[in-house]
Amino acid sequence: MSDALQQEQLVKEIPPKAADLSAWYTAVCLKAELVSYSPVRGCVVLRPAGFGMWENLQKHLDERFKATGHENAYFPLLIPESLLTKEAEHVEGFAPEVAWVTEGGQEKLEERLAIRPTSEVIIGVMYAKWIQSHRDLPILINQWANVLRWEKATRPFLRTMEFLWQEGHTAHATAAEAREETERMLDVYQDFAENVAAIPVYAGAKSASERFPGAVETFSIEALMPDGKALQSATSHDLGQNFSKAYDITFADANQQIQHVYTTSWGMSWRMLGAVIMTHGDDRGLRIPPKLAPIEAVFVPIVRGGDTSTVEKAHELAKGLRGAGYRVRVDDRDYTPGWKYSEWEMRGVPLRIEIGPRDLESGSVTVVRRDKSKGEDGAKTSVPFGELPAKLRELLDAVHDSMYAQAKAFLESHTFVVSDRDEFFTKCRERAGMIDIAWCGRPECEAEVKTATSATTRNTRALQTPGAKCVACGEPATVNAYFAQSY
Amino acid sequence: MSDALQQEQLVKEIPPKAADLSAWYTAVCLKAELVSYSPVRGCVVLRPAGFGMWENLQKHLDERFKATGHENAYFPLLIPESLLTKEAEHVEGFAPEVAWVTEGGQEKLEERLAIRPTSEVIIGVMYAKWIQSHRDLPILINQWANVLRWEKATRPFLRTMEFLWQEGHTAHATAAEAREETERMLDVYQDFAENVAAIPVYAGAKSASERFPGAVETFSIEALMPDGKALQSATSHDLGQNFSKAYDITFADANQQIQHVYTTSWGMSWRMLGAVIMTHGDDRGLRIPPKLAPIEAVFVPIVRGGDTSTVEKAHELAKGLRGAGYRVRVDDRDYTPGWKYSEWEMRGVPLRIEIGPRDLESGSVTVVRRDKSKGEDGAKTSVPFGELPAKLRELLDAVHDSMYAQAKAFLESHTFVVSDRDEFFTKCRERAGMIDIAWCGRPECEAEVKTATSATTRNTRALQTPGAKCVACGEPATVNAYFAQSY
Repeated sequence: MSDALQQEQLVKEIPPKAADLSAWYTAVCLKAELVSYSPVRGCVVLRPAGFGMWENLQKHLDERFKATGHENAYFPLLIPESLLTKEAEHVEGFAPEVAWVTEGGQEKLEERLAIRPTSEVIIGVMYAKWIQSHRDLPILINQWANVLRWEKATRPFLRTMEFLWQEGHTAHATAAEAREETERMLDVYQDFAENVAAIPVYAGAKSASERFPGAVETFSIEALMPDGKALQSATSHDLGQNFSKAYDITFADANQQIQHVYTTSWGMSWRMLGAVIMTHGDDRGLRIPPKLAPIEAVFVPIVRGGDTSTVEKAHELAKGLRGAGYRVRVDDRDYTPGWKYSEWEMRGVPLRIEIGPRDLESGSVTVVRRDKSKGEDGAKTSVPFGELPAKLRELLDAVHDSMYAQAKAFLESHTFVVSDRDEFFTKCRERAGMIDIAWCGRPECEAEVKTATSATTRNTRALQTPGAKCVACGEPATVNAYFAQSY
Repeated sequence: MSDALQQEQLVKEIPPKAADLSAWYTAVCLKAELVSYSPVRGCVVLRPAGFGMWENLQKHLDERFKATGHENAYFPLLIPESLLTKEAEHVEGFAPEVAWVTEGGQEKLEERLAIRPTSEVIIGVMYAKWIQSHRDLPILINQWANVLRWEKATRPFLRTMEFLWQEGHTAHATAAEAREETERMLDVYQDFAENVAAIPVYAGAKSASERFPGAVETFSIEALMPDGKALQSATSHDLGQNFSKAYDITFADANQQIQHVYTTSWGMSWRMLGAVIMTHGDDRGLRIPPKLAPIEAVFVPIVRGGDTSTVEKAHELAKGLRGAGYRVRVDDRDYTPGWKYSEWEMRGVPLRIEIGPRDLESGSVTVVRRDKSKGEDGAKTSVPFGELPAKLRELLDAVHDSMYAQAKAFLESHTFVVSDRDEFFTKCRERAGMIDIAWCGRPECEAEVKTATSATTRNTRALQTPGAKCVACGEPATVNAYFAQSY
């Protein structure tokens, strides 16, 4: 089979992204072997190619958590029903989504156990045990864990019954410190989204109706997908004293007065990988931002007439690069180079390193960037063997920057500052992108917009024009809000 | 309160190790804040000090898994009952320990879902989907996960309902490759135990009665605890074609013949940390082997007359050490140095770095080793500031080596090669340690020994004296076996 034919067959299996984002997305997730559907309804398997991205996400986020003073711990998966029901809003929010263990060790249980949908409850109970004095504060703990929320639908990364995430849970002596922590972690998420995942986001406060059940204030970062729908990519909650009062988490302050602590929680899940796939992919398949890529560069040696010296050289160069801290692979399988080019493009590896007999003679390789089109300026670079370790860093950084710039240009060109009511409703209905308006902040107004257009507030920030009226309803505006339809 | 008094009070809370290992163990786990009991029966919380050890275990094992060609993935937590029951021995072995989800999303489920007690089943089902051709083999996947086995008793790390572990699952084209993999991973575990956890172990095959349910052969590494009981620290299973036949995992070989694959699985859990605590701890508390220690060295600056220049110097030196890759902390809290010495000794930090006003003048610090007694040769070393980065590596290596040597000396002095029947039964009953005998390999013989002495085979290896008779029963011996009472 010719290279071209093989290539075409491969590409054929991924439908064009612009025509049907949803079909493209599912095809890419499966074809790139990120996930596989499992026989358990609502649950997917994260395959090595997908888990490799998750590991890099973990590494970069975890470094940021530790740099801001947090430590990791692990809390139980199961939560007794009697504990779950203590914070009223919280249990109301999560009860419909809970899976219950009712039998264990061949006996029926006296009390049902919930599989954690989130861990505020069990962690709150432990904090009540651990915290006595102001000297025990703050407590800054994060947990990497699986959680489960009953879902009928399944969409890889975006909507699954079980998912992997991290959940930070902190306790503080004052409301101000808790708020500061909430905002600090929102900043960490934004930094991660932009500088690791190469996805620009809008950060702000959720409206009352979109708040986490039990929170005083919820903040989020929101990314814009190519179909004009927003994707909430992480949240950070100021829980005030709601949980400390429900679970009796108190401390003796410096004056020996007993006070309730202030708590926060914040989380990012594997949903973020869904944003990465949709934001960066193209008709050839995945494009993984370099810092999340399990393989940063793949060597494709070209073998002519059975001479495998290019393969040996590729392995030698790869070994050197691994020593310099790079994640590289040599594809020495028995397929044609053309097939391999398509395959690794589809799998989204940021750089391909071609090494043929002529390269061997000239002592250089050809590095091809996944983020550029064929023939585009800078798509191919010839790099002498000895310069590879230094040049690769430079190229990976350039790939990250250009992916971010592309995503940023999309977000900016699909953000609309609107002051006209009709235009606002039209843009919301059309799924035009992020629609930025002066807003009254009233739940009734938000509900009306939602009924009429399917759009909701994504997040809000300080009112940009003092004295403005709400674009949706004409009442006095209190904030600026991004409206959009959402995942 | 004087330093000495504070110190005494602290130490008082940990009972002597030799008198009652079990009481000592529980006290250390709680006092060093490794774990906390939770309101969920059988489940403990792994607190930051304990999770930090687990993170280091993960790092070192994961590196070894990747170096031997494995990748990580993540499979669903829940397993439908109909799938679990396909491999007869397996389901029989695990059914009594399963927790069942019977309700979800406010509805009663049509089919019960098991919380994974281990993942051979769900992974087998996925491998059947993924594997078509010999080109797809081998599959070398590992998963870091929580699993749940219904337990009445709770002992931190050693016996808990939910626990953290890793489980490797591989599929191969031939029986020989599967066996090779099983043995390779056993070697990895032994290497980890000895070179990271500083625990010498005996590696070998389990007897038929101690095999994993569904395995053709199970191998284990076994450590000896201070009370003379063995602790199985990791297992590696050759599953033959048992699971591939039950779950129909087949491939087309090079001749296009359909064959069943050969599978393996292997695991180490947080139980290993229980072995670490018991093996190395002493009457002052924990002693963490350096490679597992969340904090390798702790600075205790001594402040005289309100002059905090030692604190500042400690922070400066700590910063430099962190840059050189060390995990260090400065304890600048408002406690006396003596209290801090006891506290960090109890928490098992391998090195303490004292820095007082006189040290500042001489430009050096005093490094104190946790593995040595006060006044013992080499317990204290004066190190000039500039030599700290190099010297610390040397000292940490020395601590590891001496901890390993101590554990090794204990194991060797508590291993008995026995050829007399009465002596064998006595030593088994007395919990003398690892009792090495020529053994017949018969389940009936093993059962008799167990009834009479509570001891079982830990693992077996090639018969050391050809023609020998079984020391327990007089039948012809087929292997050498270590017998011991066990955790």
